[in-house]
Amino acid sequence: MATDSRTSAHPELPDRWMTRRWRVSADTERSYEIRVAEPLLDLRNDALLSKGNVPGRRFVIIDSGIRAQWQERLRRYFDAKEVEARYLAVPGGERSKNMEAVMSIVAELRQYGVDRRNEPPIIMGGGALLDTAGFAASIYRRGVPFIRVPTTLLGYVDASVGVKTGVNVGSSKNLVGTFNAPELVLLDREFFGSLAPGEIASGLAEVLKLGLGCDAALFRMLDAGAPAFASTRLRDADGFKILARAIDVMLDQLQPNIYESDLSRPVDLGHTFSQAFEMLDDGSRVRHGEAVAFDLNLSAIISARRDILGVDELRELADLTRRLGLSTAVPDIEPQVVWESLIERTQHRAGGQRTPLPRRIGDCVFVNDLARQEICDAFEELRDSHFHR
Amino acid sequence: MATDSRTSAHPELPDRWMTRRWRVSADTERSYEIRVAEPLLDLRNDALLSKGNVPGRRFVIIDSGIRAQWQERLRRYFDAKEVEARYLAVPGGERSKNMEAVMSIVAELRQYGVDRRNEPPIIMGGGALLDTAGFAASIYRRGVPFIRVPTTLLGYVDASVGVKTGVNVGSSKNLVGTFNAPELVLLDREFFGSLAPGEIASGLAEVLKLGLGCDAALFRMLDAGAPAFASTRLRDADGFKILARAIDVMLDQLQPNIYESDLSRPVDLGHTFSQAFEMLDDGSRVRHGEAVAFDLNLSAIISARRDILGVDELRELADLTRRLGLSTAVPDIEPQVVWESLIERTQHRAGGQRTPLPRRIGDCVFVNDLARQEICDAFEELRDSHFHR
Repeated sequence: MATDSRTSAHPELPDRWMTRRWRVSADTERSYEIRVAEPLLDLRNDALLSKGNVPGRRFVIIDSGIRAQWQERLRRYFDAKEVEARYLAVPGGERSKNMEAVMSIVAELRQYGVDRRNEPPIIMGGGALLDTAGFAASIYRRGVPFIRVPTTLLGYVDASVGVKTGVNVGSSKNLVGTFNAPELVLLDREFFGSLAPGEIASGLAEVLKLGLGCDAALFRMLDAGAPAFASTRLRDADGFKILARAIDVMLDQLQPNIYESDLSRPVDLGHTFSQAFEMLDDGSRVRHGEAVAFDLNLSAIISARRDILGVDELRELADLTRRLGLSTAVPDIEPQVVWESLIERTQHRAGGQRTPLPRRIGDCVFVNDLARQEICDAFEELRDSHFHR
Repeated sequence: MATDSRTSAHPELPDRWMTRRWRVSADTERSYEIRVAEPLLDLRNDALLSKGNVPGRRFVIIDSGIRAQWQERLRRYFDAKEVEARYLAVPGGERSKNMEAVMSIVAELRQYGVDRRNEPPIIMGGGALLDTAGFAASIYRRGVPFIRVPTTLLGYVDASVGVKTGVNVGSSKNLVGTFNAPELVLLDREFFGSLAPGEIASGLAEVLKLGLGCDAALFRMLDAGAPAFASTRLRDADGFKILARAIDVMLDQLQPNIYESDLSRPVDLGHTFSQAFEMLDDGSRVRHGEAVAFDLNLSAIISARRDILGVDELRELADLTRRLGLSTAVPDIEPQVVWESLIERTQHRAGGQRTPLPRRIGDCVFVNDLARQEICDAFEELRDSHFHR
C-alpha cells in the first residue's frame, strides 16, 4: 500500500496511549491549455468541439450580456455541427456574481445530466460570469471539467488565464471559490468588436497592471498603442502582440505560484484598494478595470510619497491611465472605506498587508506597514489633484 | 518560463488564422496524516494544537449532536491550554447537510477572521457535519486548511479517511462538494462511549462494506467480534485492530484513485441503492449506515440471482447484518424509487452503471447491465424474505 502506516507509543504520553499514523498522498497532475483559436465560430474551426466524448451534446453557459448576434452565431455553429446544445443564459457583471447564481447553474447542470468526465460545459462570457460558472462547474459533483471562452478583454487577459473561480458574498469579493484548472481556454478577439468602449478600457487596466508591476516592455507597448485601441480594439497585429505578451507575463507570475502558496503576489497590484471603488452600495457601476486603475494610481501615489517611485513615473502612469480611456473621475468615497479595503485584503493575505507598490515601471515592492493616515492622504491626492495637474 | 508557448499556423485553416498555445501546469503536491491520538482531550496530549501558527486562537466547528459533556471537556481543554477558542455549534445529520449550513459556516469564518494559511478550523462531529463543514472550509477564500475529528464510528472509518467534502441539494446526495484533503485527521475512540447503539451499528455497516467488497479477513474479524460490540463499542484491543484494518483497507482503495479518476470503485459497494432508503421524504430517519446495509444485502441478492455470489455467502451476510445490530426492517418503498437511485448513480458515475456486486466475501465485480425488473424483484426478496428465512 502506498500509505506509510505505523503504530508506536506516544513519545511523551503514558504507554497505554498508543498512536498510529497513516500518511496519505493527495498529489495531482493536471495541466491545461490556453489556445488562440480565432475565428472560433467559423464552421471550419473545430476548436469548440475539441474536448468531450459525449457526441452530439454540449452544455453552454452564456453571458446574457453578450450581444444577440453572438448567441445567434453560436446556435448556427452548433446546428451546422449537428450538436444539440443546451444554452443557459446567465447575467454577467459583479452584481450577479453570487451564490444564488452558482446554485441555479448547478440545478441546470443536474437537470441536463452533464456527464462527470466527458462533457465539459462551455462557459462563454465576461470575467464575472467565467468566475461564477467556473465555480459552479468546480463544485458540481465535486467538479466537472469545463471550457472557458472569454468574450471581454478583461476575461481574455485576466479571468481566463489562471485557475481561480469564485463569487462574492455580501460585500466580500470572492469570499468563496476554488482553485480549479479549466480543461481548455479558447481565445478569440472577434468578440471585442461588439464591446462598449468602457469594456475595452476596463480590460486594458489589467494589462496596465501587468506592465506597471511586472514588465516595462508591456507598459511601453501600451503607451505606443494607446491612440489606436479605440478603433482597432486590439484586433490588429500590434494588438495581438500586446495580448500575447500580457498572457506571457501573467503566466510567468502564476506558473510558479499557481495555488498562491506565496501570498506576496505582484499580480495583486491594483487589487488592494480596488474593492472600495467597485463594491459601492450607492448604485453606481464602477467596472472592475476602472477600480483597478484607481488602485494602481493610488498605490503609485503612496509609493511616490515614500520616495520609492519617481514623480515622473507617477505622472506617466496618470497620463497613460487617461489615454487608455479609463475614468479619471474618482468616486467621492470616505477615505475610511479605502482603509477598510486594505484591512479586508490583509485578512485575505493571511494577516500581512503584503501590498505591492510600484518601485518603477515594470517592478514592484511589498510593504506591510501602511498606515491609515497615509492612505487617507494619498486618496485625497488621487481624488483632488492626481489627474488634474 | 515554465509554460510551453508557441505560435503556429492552424494546420487545417487558412494562413491568417494564426493560433498560439500556452500549456500551464497545475500540479499539486499534498499529503495529510490520519493519526490515532487518544485520549485526545487529556491535558497532556497536544495533538489538537499541533497545527496552526496563530497563537492563542482556534475556531472549532462542533456537531450540536455531541453530548454536552464533550463540549464541556473541549472547553476545559482549550481553557487549560490558554487558547481562546470560538465554538460554532452546527447540527449534524443528513438533513442538515445543505448549502444553507455551508454558507452560515462561511459567514462565521469570515466574521472570526480565520487566517487563510495558519489557523485550521477544527471540525468535530459525525460524518454529515465533517462533510458539510469540510466543504465550507474548502471554499472559504478558495480553501483554508482544516482538521477533522470524527466523533462517530461512521465518521471514524469513512468520512474522515478520504478527501471528499460535500452537501446534498434537494434529494440529490452530495450534488456539490470538493475533493480537498484535510490538514490532519485525529482519531479517538473515547467519543464512541456516548453514542446511541444505532450509531455504532451504522458505522459498522461501512466496515461491513469494506469486508464484503474488499477484504475477507475484515469480514471475519467483524463476525468474530459482533457479540461484543454492543458493550465494548470497539474501545478494546480487538476493536482497535478492526478499526485499523478498516482504515488500511479503505486507504488501499483510495490511495491509487484519490480523485476518482477511475469511477469503478469497490468502495462504492453499498452506495448504489442506499439513497432510496435514506432520502425518504416521509419523515422517517434511516441512518446512512442502515441504508448502506440494505444496499449491501440488495446487491448481494442481485449477485446471487445472477449466480455470481453463492447462496451460503448471501445467508452469511444477512446473518452478520443482523448480528451487528443493523435494522432488518426494510422500508416499504416503491421498487421504482430503488431503480431511480441507480439511474442517479449512473449519472454520477459518468453514464455507466459501474455497480459493484459482491462476487464472494472480500471481492466484487462491476456490472453495467442491471435491468429494472431485476432490481424490483431483488428488492421484493430483500423486503419480504431475505431477513426472515
